[in-house]
Amino acid sequence: MTIEEMIARIGPLDEAAMAEAAKHADQLTKPPGSLGRLEAVACQAAGITGDKIPALDRKAVIVMAGDHGVCAEGVSAFPAEVTGLMVANFLNGGAAVNVFARHAGADVVCVDIGVDADVNHPRLVSRKVRRGTANMAQGPAMSREEAMAAIRVGYDIVGELVDEGYRLFATGEMGIGNTTPSSAMLAVLAGLDVSAAVGRGTGIDEERLKHKQEIVRRAIAINKPDASDPLDVLAKVGGLEIAGLVGVILGAAARRCPVVIDGFISTAAALAASRLAPQSAAYMIPSHLSNEQGHAAALEAIGLAPMIQLDLRLGEGTGAALCFLLVEAALKMMREMATFESAGIPGA
Amino acid sequence: MTIEEMIARIGPLDEAAMAEAAKHADQLTKPPGSLGRLEAVACQAAGITGDKIPALDRKAVIVMAGDHGVCAEGVSAFPAEVTGLMVANFLNGGAAVNVFARHAGADVVCVDIGVDADVNHPRLVSRKVRRGTANMAQGPAMSREEAMAAIRVGYDIVGELVDEGYRLFATGEMGIGNTTPSSAMLAVLAGLDVSAAVGRGTGIDEERLKHKQEIVRRAIAINKPDASDPLDVLAKVGGLEIAGLVGVILGAAARRCPVVIDGFISTAAALAASRLAPQSAAYMIPSHLSNEQGHAAALEAIGLAPMIQLDLRLGEGTGAALCFLLVEAALKMMREMATFESAGIPGA
Repeated sequence: MTIEEMIARIGPLDEAAMAEAAKHADQLTKPPGSLGRLEAVACQAAGITGDKIPALDRKAVIVMAGDHGVCAEGVSAFPAEVTGLMVANFLNGGAAVNVFARHAGADVVCVDIGVDADVNHPRLVSRKVRRGTANMAQGPAMSREEAMAAIRVGYDIVGELVDEGYRLFATGEMGIGNTTPSSAMLAVLAGLDVSAAVGRGTGIDEERLKHKQEIVRRAIAINKPDASDPLDVLAKVGGLEIAGLVGVILGAAARRCPVVIDGFISTAAALAASRLAPQSAAYMIPSHLSNEQGHAAALEAIGLAPMIQLDLRLGEGTGAALCFLLVEAALKMMREMATFESAGIPGA
Repeated sequence: MTIEEMIARIGPLDEAAMAEAAKHADQLTKPPGSLGRLEAVACQAAGITGDKIPALDRKAVIVMAGDHGVCAEGVSAFPAEVTGLMVANFLNGGAAVNVFARHAGADVVCVDIGVDADVNHPRLVSRKVRRGTANMAQGPAMSREEAMAAIRVGYDIVGELVDEGYRLFATGEMGIGNTTPSSAMLAVLAGLDVSAAVGRGTGIDEERLKHKQEIVRRAIAINKPDASDPLDVLAKVGGLEIAGLVGVILGAAARRCPVVIDGFISTAAALAASRLAPQSAAYMIPSHLSNEQGHAAALEAIGLAPMIQLDLRLGEGTGAALCFLLVEAALKMMREMATFESAGIPGA
């Protein structure tokens, strides 16, 4: 399937279902609109699925894992080996995203799309496109074909999960060094200055932050990614797990399922997806505003506003998994609240 | 019990338990501090309870209901009768706070502390101090003794619930017109201009907003509440359910239980509590930033920062009930995450 074919499958939201949902929300025992964003999410879910009150019980956080050649430049506080070790942690259920996914009644689907190590586990989804990207400070992170293959991985996995009955997705990722390509993508796609797009990631000091900015500038200067061609940007200064998440988002939209967007790296993927397929943004539910510099600008570039502010800076899909609980609250509001009529209360 | 005796029972947080909790959080498989506010909440819960990882499984949203004489001035979009009708809705489980409390595994405890109607229901906690307040635009809303009696109601109910095994509380309220006294309290206690303290409540238009501001100005001018005497402010320009929530907060702090603060009205109560007993603020967990003008200023006056932003403007305890889910996430993080050592991952 070409990227054009993927994009063509994404339709507009169902306006009739949204209007029906809004009408129902206004009959519930509360002043109209007083549940704010939860009412908006409920209407969005109706528009996405075509059901006034959809059941989105089966939920998955798709955690894409990949390594980054740019780690050779010393951009991260952690060694690259941690990517593979954390994948094992996800598969054993001990990472933060596992805890929060369980809390929200969701499953974690962990995908090796580009880890630079041999990872084996019965629950691992092995779809390695290549062992880590190349060092983008010296040339393209990957070829256009590899970026497309990674998008296809994400797209296909969502399709398989929908066939199994999953209806609500969240983007998650693991890849030591991946705030660096995300910052480069954000700088190029949103036309942001590198100093505004690059942040401290999981926790680097002032000196290393300056170095990281320099590396991003070099990567952009050497590769000259074309801002009007998101696939070019993904290939030259992106990452395998980021491209995989672009596929997850396009796949969810194509199958008319909402997809909750996690933090900075996920939002870089969402920005690329929204540039490839502007209609896909209507299928995105934002989750949290992270502590990473540039995250607010990335959300804004897509037109998303966060619902949670917890100063998270972990990624993995942690904030999105927590946001599942708010999506579920919005649907329960629709399903369980009394109406003014049923409660015998005069409306406003 | 006098207010001084209540205040004297509130001790400082347990620094040793907080340090132990922080140490444990730093050993979990994530960069130190990368779960932001959730780590802070986990440490706060440790400091409050004295346990490194407390079990706060039994949770209650205490919904205090009362009426307001100032409704005679036409400050609300809803008729005062709705207070009693909504109390019935809470007791039948059909209101938004019931849905969100069930979602979070919490119980709703509905208290008639001052409804201007006869409400009877087997699940209602009937502790009516008086049938609604007097019209504060013409004189004091209630006597100092009545305000103190209402505080005592909240304080005692928390004590009873702790004895039953409840360990985590949220403030909730219902009282048509109650953003008006809350705004007056905020203006007086935080020294805010009335125009900044008064907002649209559940949804009044520009003209009625101006009128509401005028009523608040008149109430303050006629009653001359003493900003240095929170009990005077509560009595003259407050409300029975607001005073009840002050008691809930003081009671939770006295029994070393965290209390999640809901929206604008609850935050006005929290502000009064923090002025009566500055130590009580350490027991408060903020929840959401509502759409009500003045809420941000009220939170800031206590030193609280919201975790959720959903543009809610309903009250009832809805935002606090949702926040229970985040508190639980913080505790599960502590209890269920692998450590670097157990997962065999080198730390940063």
